[in-house]
Amino acid sequence: MNASATRSLPIGVFDSGVGGLTVLHAIRETLPNEDLIYLGDTARLPYGTKSPASICRYASQATARLQEQGIKSLVVACNTASAVALDELRQQLDPVPVIGVVEPGATAAVELSPGGKHLVLATEATVILGAYRNAISERDPNAEVRELACELLVSIAEEGWSNGAIAEDIVRRYLEPLATMAFEPDNIILGCTHFPLLQDAIRNVVPAGTTIVDSASTTAAVAAHLLADNGLLNERAAAGRLRLLATDGATRFARVGGRFLGEDLAVEDIELVDL
Amino acid sequence: MNASATRSLPIGVFDSGVGGLTVLHAIRETLPNEDLIYLGDTARLPYGTKSPASICRYASQATARLQEQGIKSLVVACNTASAVALDELRQQLDPVPVIGVVEPGATAAVELSPGGKHLVLATEATVILGAYRNAISERDPNAEVRELACELLVSIAEEGWSNGAIAEDIVRRYLEPLATMAFEPDNIILGCTHFPLLQDAIRNVVPAGTTIVDSASTTAAVAAHLLADNGLLNERAAAGRLRLLATDGATRFARVGGRFLGEDLAVEDIELVDL
Repeated sequence: MNASATRSLPIGVFDSGVGGLTVLHAIRETLPNEDLIYLGDTARLPYGTKSPASICRYASQATARLQEQGIKSLVVACNTASAVALDELRQQLDPVPVIGVVEPGATAAVELSPGGKHLVLATEATVILGAYRNAISERDPNAEVRELACELLVSIAEEGWSNGAIAEDIVRRYLEPLATMAFEPDNIILGCTHFPLLQDAIRNVVPAGTTIVDSASTTAAVAAHLLADNGLLNERAAAGRLRLLATDGATRFARVGGRFLGEDLAVEDIELVDL
Repeated sequence: MNASATRSLPIGVFDSGVGGLTVLHAIRETLPNEDLIYLGDTARLPYGTKSPASICRYASQATARLQEQGIKSLVVACNTASAVALDELRQQLDPVPVIGVVEPGATAAVELSPGGKHLVLATEATVILGAYRNAISERDPNAEVRELACELLVSIAEEGWSNGAIAEDIVRRYLEPLATMAFEPDNIILGCTHFPLLQDAIRNVVPAGTTIVDSASTTAAVAAHLLADNGLLNERAAAGRLRLLATDGATRFARVGGRFLGEDLAVEDIELVDL
């Protein structure tokens, strides 16, 4: 395929569910002219509780489905799949560039505060995998990293209760161990794609000087740089198109996903696919 | 098999995850001498978002696994599977009696308040299936039923935050629509196996006269009656044994499941099985 044809292809975005729509939203804000195709593997979520072998198989099937549609790059907007399957997906899609959601957040945090203190808020699965801890330590051996599993923040975001007293009380309770550890982070990394929705609640609870590193917008920025560096940016002036695929539950996908994407979705906007 | 041999078999209990351990706990309290074998299909949870055909297939596989071990009755301690697959499982196990978790709660509520007002707190999947609404209406056409999907209560229970201000604030917020509806329930039915853990938080929030119908203890009572009626109660005096099987995630099963069972569990207490 010639360069011009490749440039006009969509960017593929893949997640186990709707959380990755915060990443899709950030990519649309950063690259409004690009066509985007999103695949949420809602039939098999959550990935976090599955074995690495299963996660690799699921991610590979989802990637193959997006590859069939023709994509010029893939964003793995799922922390679990980014931590477990990124190398395999890069081999599978080579030479199409693949961007995970862990590295951009880790890189941004390390650049903001070399030798600094980083607090990662994530799901239990991501904490157990040590995904951000490893990515930060590789980039900055002097960095101090603490990780907190905050499962309830996922449910709060999906329920649409991301703002207000209940969300802030939950964040405050999750952060209680920091006082005991005497750990005052420079940066808080939102290590779960659901957590950008809770950014305000988190900001209202943490000290004013703490920087919140949002892995959705950092991933979008990396995607923009990578496409530009490879001469793959879509050059047309019109707004890009969006296709949304899911493997199950279009009704819930539309209702909950709309919150994550930041616009109303109808059931008819979701194409069901079988992997 | 003769009657005496059958009496000494365990009761099988099946759920998609750890929630059914509240039912197991209630059965142990009611029938302390019975052997129990529990299977949590943690690899494939949650069932609520799966298609009815998938739920029936999963439930049937789990039931077959328990049947291989030899059981004298089966308790389907999963609201989704009870609503979708009970008839199929009864055919599969016939003549072994099968008890679901929806009917006992519905029956108890209707007996407590004939022609009364019932509020069902459940997961979104159970509400969409109308499981309790149908079961109550069949038993009492004059009953008024309202159902509220309370997804966050599942996560709060799994996180171990079932008591205290955050849990009560969440319950209060879920109950807000009742004021608008001018609906003052006689009974609140806990239509999710996770919710018995939240009984105190719910009681602290609702008017003093409201009865809380716990589907775990009502199911245990039905199981006890059914075994007695069929001459299947274990007649020995010693305490029953307990086996716990899961299809994935023994570490999390032990940690979270311990809260639901009401006793500490170690990873070694969980036998991993493949379905």
